[in-house]
Amino acid sequence: MADALRVALLGCGVVGSQVVRLMREQADDLAARVGMPLELAGVAVRRPNRHPEVDAGLLTTDAPELVTRDDVDIVVEVVGGIEPARSLLLSALGHGKSVVTANKALLAEDGATLHDAAARAGVDIYYEAAVAGAIPLLRPLRESLAGDRITRVIGIVNGTTNFILSRMDATGAGFEEALGEATALGYAEADPTADVDGFDAAAKAAILAGLAFHTRVTLDDVHREGIGNVTAADITSAKAIGCTVKLLAICERTGPPGSEQIAVRVHPAMIPATHPLAGVGDAFNAVFVDAQAAGSLMFYGRGAGGAPTASAVLGDLVAVARNRINGSRGSGESAYADLPVRPMGEVSTRYHVALDVADQPGVLAAVAGAFAENGVSIQTVRQEGRDDAATLVLVTHAAPDAALSRTVRQLSTMAFVRHAASVMRVEGMASD
Amino acid sequence: MADALRVALLGCGVVGSQVVRLMREQADDLAARVGMPLELAGVAVRRPNRHPEVDAGLLTTDAPELVTRDDVDIVVEVVGGIEPARSLLLSALGHGKSVVTANKALLAEDGATLHDAAARAGVDIYYEAAVAGAIPLLRPLRESLAGDRITRVIGIVNGTTNFILSRMDATGAGFEEALGEATALGYAEADPTADVDGFDAAAKAAILAGLAFHTRVTLDDVHREGIGNVTAADITSAKAIGCTVKLLAICERTGPPGSEQIAVRVHPAMIPATHPLAGVGDAFNAVFVDAQAAGSLMFYGRGAGGAPTASAVLGDLVAVARNRINGSRGSGESAYADLPVRPMGEVSTRYHVALDVADQPGVLAAVAGAFAENGVSIQTVRQEGRDDAATLVLVTHAAPDAALSRTVRQLSTMAFVRHAASVMRVEGMASD
Repeated sequence: MADALRVALLGCGVVGSQVVRLMREQADDLAARVGMPLELAGVAVRRPNRHPEVDAGLLTTDAPELVTRDDVDIVVEVVGGIEPARSLLLSALGHGKSVVTANKALLAEDGATLHDAAARAGVDIYYEAAVAGAIPLLRPLRESLAGDRITRVIGIVNGTTNFILSRMDATGAGFEEALGEATALGYAEADPTADVDGFDAAAKAAILAGLAFHTRVTLDDVHREGIGNVTAADITSAKAIGCTVKLLAICERTGPPGSEQIAVRVHPAMIPATHPLAGVGDAFNAVFVDAQAAGSLMFYGRGAGGAPTASAVLGDLVAVARNRINGSRGSGESAYADLPVRPMGEVSTRYHVALDVADQPGVLAAVAGAFAENGVSIQTVRQEGRDDAATLVLVTHAAPDAALSRTVRQLSTMAFVRHAASVMRVEGMASD
Repeated sequence: MADALRVALLGCGVVGSQVVRLMREQADDLAARVGMPLELAGVAVRRPNRHPEVDAGLLTTDAPELVTRDDVDIVVEVVGGIEPARSLLLSALGHGKSVVTANKALLAEDGATLHDAAARAGVDIYYEAAVAGAIPLLRPLRESLAGDRITRVIGIVNGTTNFILSRMDATGAGFEEALGEATALGYAEADPTADVDGFDAAAKAAILAGLAFHTRVTLDDVHREGIGNVTAADITSAKAIGCTVKLLAICERTGPPGSEQIAVRVHPAMIPATHPLAGVGDAFNAVFVDAQAAGSLMFYGRGAGGAPTASAVLGDLVAVARNRINGSRGSGESAYADLPVRPMGEVSTRYHVALDVADQPGVLAAVAGAFAENGVSIQTVRQEGRDDAATLVLVTHAAPDAALSRTVRQLSTMAFVRHAASVMRVEGMASD
């Protein structure tokens, strides 16, 4: 056996450069923890002249060659995106390299192919950094809770949207204005689609659900709504019922044993201001896990950023390196449960609905009738009059999501309803 | 290889009976996750007739025989205490069994002997359940953060004392009264010494510090103060400065690289009511971990109770079983750093001091002079007069603990100081 484990790094941007730094600064500690030094064998980048922090001799533009080199033991991928990341990692696995990746999009799109390739090669693929940055979350789900039955995972897993919603809440700004601020401050990328439209959070939700419920979940299985339609009126309406608006990732197990389903969704929701997730600010992520025996657990920390994400990458790197030295692998994919995905329309949710209505007799009766017709019961109603108009604010009990959205559509066609001022799901209330 | 892994359980009380239940109820899931069924080979108890929940054929009073039986692969110990637990586990390890234990006292007293025995035998000893019940904490410290540099761990890790302090805070009760309530409600044991005097928290702190700093830490290395001397006046004084009193376990790394030390302590402290740990109620535990790259992480959940602790035991059981099937072991003890323990007197702390003093000119000057003489600078002073007496409330900046306690001793000898109404360390303030 060689006297060091050699690491190929794909990508040297915000995260990769921190991986290089930490590997250098903590070399002695890492060697002691692994039982052997970790050496950088090469760093694949697009523009070698932009990386003065890396020994020039290590830099290469030929990633496909790097991942197959005989002197490489472990490939760390922090490039992101589907291709060429997928081809590179499959090639690395095929050549017997262990893999550490932070690539949530790839894992959510095609994790199965990667897991299968790793299993065939008898090597590891670890990806703690793919979800919630530095927060140890995947390892606890995969290992610490492997003897328990997880029923629900709910969390804030995207920092950009959390920053935007926090600004809207703090300043009363509309979405576009808050997005502009986020872009100016570097919290949002030039093309913010992946964050704002919920793709990033949905990819993370797919990964979390797969681990929590021992089943394969892809991005397509996730019901996804972004925050682009969240208005200042929604934020105001949320405050009026003691809530705040957050983009939530929610993974649930539903139905009786034997005919269980899972439901995975990402959408904005109103949560009580007293809920621990309501206080999660800008750059932070937090995830609640409910398990039958363990009860409720919360994990909180920095969800993004170069150093926090690199911390998660290095934790995986140490684990994968130890396994290689021991000639073993960590626990691979666990997808035996093979659970069907419940369509969003059948998922049980609660709605907050604020309607601007004509102030005339019978309006409340008609509105209540529409909910009743669809089998939705109402928890609270508040009516606020102003001049000849009034606002009706309703919070429902839980009902199938389709029944709720059908009711809202029906209400919007009623002559006395002038405007649906705010329609949003409500989560985390005590009666849930 | 056999077609099942066989588990010997030592102890069938609050935790053990839940382990039996969960192994039965989740047998199919556990088999799928491990790759082989987990079977109960035997359960060692003192009084077999008290365990109707266990097949009579499995019960035995002969634990020493059970842990050496050829048909046992894994020994789960949930008895607690030093002996006979230590002898039984050493015998089990010596016979090649993997071990899962929740025994914090034994690990804090003599973890090294157990780790050495496991290493010699090439088997695992896992103990997630020993600290903070169901909260995945040890695995994140040992594995997820293995590529980072942990600087501080601070948390609430004992439910009994947290209940007592919460009651004192809520009702104004004194210590004895709140302890009586805790005993009546089953939150405190008949002999509450281990909890109240901080032994339980100190054992957990030793385990956390050892994992966080890659060094051996025993109970003797932990500075330990219980809550028996916390008074209603302390609680009132804490409120007056916007704080609440908690029993904290604090593990720190101090000093420059090359001459680093660690400090591990358990004592009551005032923390700001806005600090996340201040809101941690009765049965819950919460632990903050600060790491250089990852930043601040928080872990929160149920710290005790049969089912939550059993969840942690089963997570370890699955991990240990997978390793056995793979012919591998998980990461063993990591104690390469071998760091010296800083004496409590040299640890940097802050004090809150409330003094009942005679209301005469020059008192504040004399008090301030005593602090200055000992090199302690004062952050805030508040003086409240009443009749011929006054109360001086001081919060210091950080200083060596010995200088602070020397100052307090000196003050108490001054003629105009009638009474030290409340002396307690302060943690978690923004200027720390």
